[in-house]
Amino acid sequence: MPAPRIVITYCVRCRWLLRAQWYAAELLQTFESELGEVALRPAAKDVEAGVFRIQVSASDDGVPTTVWNRKRDGGFPDIAELKRRVRDLVAPEMSLGHADRSANR
Amino acid sequence: MPAPRIVITYCVRCRWLLRAQWYAAELLQTFESELGEVALRPAAKDVEAGVFRIQVSASDDGVPTTVWNRKRDGGFPDIAELKRRVRDLVAPEMSLGHADRSANR
Repeated sequence: MPAPRIVITYCVRCRWLLRAQWYAAELLQTFESELGEVALRPAAKDVEAGVFRIQVSASDDGVPTTVWNRKRDGGFPDIAELKRRVRDLVAPEMSLGHADRSANR
Repeated sequence: MPAPRIVITYCVRCRWLLRAQWYAAELLQTFESELGEVALRPAAKDVEAGVFRIQVSASDDGVPTTVWNRKRDGGFPDIAELKRRVRDLVAPEMSLGHADRSANR
């Protein structure tokens, strides 16, 4: 099975490159041994206005799971919540330390 | 033809994520309408020590062209030179302004 891949699609006109990069770096540092790559994908102008979507392809079939969609989930993800959703797909046994404890409060 | 894709492979142990991100952002901002995505790929520990490689897949056959390889090219790319190499593959007619003028000096 190829290493999991994450794609972050961001709205260019909204100037969300910087926050897409921040999420990418957080995921790459937390899952540096688990992820094959994290891709930043600029959404075509005028086609997907306001899009901010994070997809994980972790299974053999290659069908991506949308772990965050700004329009569905409301705004931008809390980083701990995002890491839990990614962890559940790419490394279910992995402990996230703080991020897990804050979820159990 | 799918939009061109760039992959930046970086050595994790060398802590080159931050500079990989910077190159990714420069390329995404300059070629925001030309690129499909830019992916950051952490090199497996102990397998590719010291790797910093930038590859562009722009053709139908999907075979990537290595536009920069730290070990081949010596160190890290000047950003203007990198943009020229990427431009030549993904948007040969595009002017890079300053970056082109500095090459003609």
